[in-house]
Amino acid sequence: MTQPDVTIVREVFDLTGARWTVPVLVALEASRMRFGEIARDVGGVAQKQLSATLRELERDGFVERTAFATIPPRVEYELTPLGEELVDGVKGLGAIAFRNRDRIASARREFAERAESSAAV
Amino acid sequence: MTQPDVTIVREVFDLTGARWTVPVLVALEASRMRFGEIARDVGGVAQKQLSATLRELERDGFVERTAFATIPPRVEYELTPLGEELVDGVKGLGAIAFRNRDRIASARREFAERAESSAAV
Repeated sequence: MTQPDVTIVREVFDLTGARWTVPVLVALEASRMRFGEIARDVGGVAQKQLSATLRELERDGFVERTAFATIPPRVEYELTPLGEELVDGVKGLGAIAFRNRDRIASARREFAERAESSAAV
Repeated sequence: MTQPDVTIVREVFDLTGARWTVPVLVALEASRMRFGEIARDVGGVAQKQLSATLRELERDGFVERTAFATIPPRVEYELTPLGEELVDGVKGLGAIAFRNRDRIASARREFAERAESSAAV
């Protein structure tokens, strides 16, 4: 494995770890959408953040942006086949996190208790 | 799905997107290790960053830290069963990124070329 290969893998984790990537991927998995539709579907995302997220996903080939020469112009976003593969991986990891959410939450409580009791010594 | 549930899933993506999480998980998948062994195995990680990464993994229940009352004290880190599940998810996503690394790299080149040619207009 060469250094650029490792870097790309790391950058994909970096991308999926970014605040809005997973919600945007989940929204686009359902259907191709316009910018405003994605924003509504995701909820709570600022325009600038959503633009940046879509731009990164487009740059890496996960999302395709199509501009239609209508008046007013219409722009749609959709997952590419590569983006669909990414969504599979994201769903796999997300499902592991989701089904273990109670174990993670109780691990955090125990960790906090241990930290408190060692601080009390 | 309640809000804390969604938050935990997001935090797991945040954690796996952090710079040193995946290399540390991969190191610990091979065997339980001492701090210095992990540092050597991962390579290029500062002590402070490695401490913070291990602490987060321990907090969420993915890594167990065991201190032995030897002189000098010995501390070992190992994956918990929950951590092993996380590694499975990470490997799934990592494998998708790795096998598509050339497609991602060429998507980036095309994106840069489109950006250049539209800037030239």
